[in-house]
Amino acid sequence: MANTNSVSVQVFSLNCWGIRYLSKHCPQRYAMIGDMLCKEEHDIVLLQEVWSEKDYLSLKKKLACSHPHSHYFKSGVIGSGLAIFSKHRIHDTFVYRYSLNGYPYMAHHGDWFGGKAVGLAVLNIGSLTANVYVTHLHAEYCRDKDSYLPHRVVQAWELQQFIRHTSTAADVVILGGDLNMHPQDLGNRLLRTYTGLRDSYLETAKFDGCEDGITLIADNPFISKKELVPFDKGIRIDYILFKGSSKADVYCDFMSTTKGSVPDHPFPYSDHEALTAELRLETQTPTGTGSDSQAKNRDSAAEKVAELVDIVTEARTEVKVGLHCAERMRYTASRTGVMGLALLFLELAIAAVPWLALGAEQPFPRTSFYMLAALCFAILLTTSLLYIFYTMELKSLQGAEDQMRLAVGSLQEMLRGFPLAQPHSTQRRAPEGQGPSAFDPEE
Amino acid sequence: MANTNSVSVQVFSLNCWGIRYLSKHCPQRYAMIGDMLCKEEHDIVLLQEVWSEKDYLSLKKKLACSHPHSHYFKSGVIGSGLAIFSKHRIHDTFVYRYSLNGYPYMAHHGDWFGGKAVGLAVLNIGSLTANVYVTHLHAEYCRDKDSYLPHRVVQAWELQQFIRHTSTAADVVILGGDLNMHPQDLGNRLLRTYTGLRDSYLETAKFDGCEDGITLIADNPFISKKELVPFDKGIRIDYILFKGSSKADVYCDFMSTTKGSVPDHPFPYSDHEALTAELRLETQTPTGTGSDSQAKNRDSAAEKVAELVDIVTEARTEVKVGLHCAERMRYTASRTGVMGLALLFLELAIAAVPWLALGAEQPFPRTSFYMLAALCFAILLTTSLLYIFYTMELKSLQGAEDQMRLAVGSLQEMLRGFPLAQPHSTQRRAPEGQGPSAFDPEE
Repeated sequence: MANTNSVSVQVFSLNCWGIRYLSKHCPQRYAMIGDMLCKEEHDIVLLQEVWSEKDYLSLKKKLACSHPHSHYFKSGVIGSGLAIFSKHRIHDTFVYRYSLNGYPYMAHHGDWFGGKAVGLAVLNIGSLTANVYVTHLHAEYCRDKDSYLPHRVVQAWELQQFIRHTSTAADVVILGGDLNMHPQDLGNRLLRTYTGLRDSYLETAKFDGCEDGITLIADNPFISKKELVPFDKGIRIDYILFKGSSKADVYCDFMSTTKGSVPDHPFPYSDHEALTAELRLETQTPTGTGSDSQAKNRDSAAEKVAELVDIVTEARTEVKVGLHCAERMRYTASRTGVMGLALLFLELAIAAVPWLALGAEQPFPRTSFYMLAALCFAILLTTSLLYIFYTMELKSLQGAEDQMRLAVGSLQEMLRGFPLAQPHSTQRRAPEGQGPSAFDPEE
Repeated sequence: MANTNSVSVQVFSLNCWGIRYLSKHCPQRYAMIGDMLCKEEHDIVLLQEVWSEKDYLSLKKKLACSHPHSHYFKSGVIGSGLAIFSKHRIHDTFVYRYSLNGYPYMAHHGDWFGGKAVGLAVLNIGSLTANVYVTHLHAEYCRDKDSYLPHRVVQAWELQQFIRHTSTAADVVILGGDLNMHPQDLGNRLLRTYTGLRDSYLETAKFDGCEDGITLIADNPFISKKELVPFDKGIRIDYILFKGSSKADVYCDFMSTTKGSVPDHPFPYSDHEALTAELRLETQTPTGTGSDSQAKNRDSAAEKVAELVDIVTEARTEVKVGLHCAERMRYTASRTGVMGLALLFLELAIAAVPWLALGAEQPFPRTSFYMLAALCFAILLTTSLLYIFYTMELKSLQGAEDQMRLAVGSLQEMLRGFPLAQPHSTQRRAPEGQGPSAFDPEE
């Protein structure tokens, strides 16, 4: 294939930890972040946890010269916290809100109120169309007993669906954000294998940053080391992923992370480390590939599909666990509600007896009566709301499970087609181009 | 262009009005619908308001032979009500839940609980990839004073975004469903102009059905004629829309609607009429177009963009109206909440006085005290929930407004580029092929 020209694109990603009045040194850190972005002039800046729109607007003002184009993705009660700043014009945006995102009554975890989502911005970089995604998945509060795992797996599932379905015409795909998943976690494998996105940390020619590319490090003063146990040094949960197309090859020439402290400043930018990836986009005019390379591509595609079947099956199991859990919770809510109702009737019956039999002159325990009645109503209201909420959770989990079952069926069908002939489904995007990343199992 | 071969596809769409125990003759009508679908053997069946999954499953069982592939899209508390049955294998599905969909406390309208959405199924029809969408937008309860208009406009906006972003690689796009909008309503123009989808009723070579293609007719026994005023005969709110691509031309050869009554049955299939469109897909091998046709296409594209700018601007105005309304509602909720809180404090203060000054022996109006306290708590809880809800509504409206502003900017930029040269953005899909429908202003 003949390379015609190449463009270099610097992509930056940072979870800003920007909860006003709660995050430590929030205004100072935003000032530091703004100064640094203004100076470094990355092509694309992807920020997460910019919870206040005011902070986004002040950043926008500061970066008006270096990054004239920007977008803040709105969603949920507080917002999605997602923002993009770009040197290149943003032509179009779209946002997808994950159907599951924690529980509203877990207010101290706060994820539900954040309305987690994935934002898409369509940019033109030179002659290439780039789909740039920014996202932030549900946090992991306890790795051993992670009750949010089904939610995060469904989020990863919806993320890969969204990217696959919306990026078919893109020449370059870039995803940056805080995935809250370790590199080999189920959701991460699901995302990477299904979309063909490649991890810039693993692909980079040169790396400068924390050991093993970790982005939540023990040395960060905003992090309690206890939370990281058993990972003493830290964990890698922030990513910049990318892939090319038949029209453009993408390479990662250099990648770096911040290392906790910032020169001349008393504290780091955030509780997460910032990532910067230098991507090289090489426009190409596709030429015909020989039958040898086609056969090779077919084999590697077959392997990929087999791998996908395993991963999706694993994800289905995880979603089923979540389903059982949600069913149990809904059952508990409805049982408690029925008990509240029974209690209310019982109370009314007891109250009716002295009134009916003895008249109103008897001493009647009014205080306890009204307290108990209020309690019954509170129980009924709470359990009704919980019942509605769990029903919605169940629907979302069932929906994801259905789609996964369909996906496994489709993949197995593809797999059966492989040894004999090229499956018709690969006609849409021929597996030339970039090896694994050009494989598109969506159809 | 040389046509190589053509395929005929029958698409069916029906709003089933399937609310168990509430919709009249629900089981009988499902039986009638199942029998008819089994007999008619349409290629693609798009159903709305299949509110119960049990009804979907019994239809699935009945149609196992005629339509081996099917999918039910789950969402919200009750479900999305959307289902697809197909003769062609469904390779992939995806669902997008609209961010705005009425109010939970308008329980008698019920839309909020339905979790309105758009479902996508990717099918292979012969050698072509077809993206088939089914959707159902928020109902219009009062045309003169339609408080849901901003919600419906945002739904139409999100629908066109979803279709544009997910259908770039599709050879054929089909959308069927109950849009709850008249042909020239703002949301409908937004959808059709932005996506280039064409209305099969307007495009069909031959039509057999109700006058003006109306799908909610006065003669239907399930409809109260009062609701249709001032449209005596009825209104057209159900559609089958389609478009082709550079790889396939699509034509509508025949379209029909049911006309209220069903032979040998005492009542019709539903309160809506059913639509059937016979589409002819012609695969083509694209050949170069002359400079004349290119110039013509450029002109028509410029007109289209100018039209889009107007429509999006109109939609922005509508969304802004909704914004003001939501802001006012949120303000009212917060003010009522503050009053509830003040009342509670006042009551506590009044209660404290006799206790402190005179001891517990004084007659104390316990009943009124607890009743009032319960009322205060109820007010506080309700207003808090409303406040959260209106905040979410505001975010969604603001998000849509932002995206519309960005879209107008992008479109105006395109428009400036037109008189001098072909804008670079049309490189992705050249405006050859099908005239207006092939114009893709997304980039």
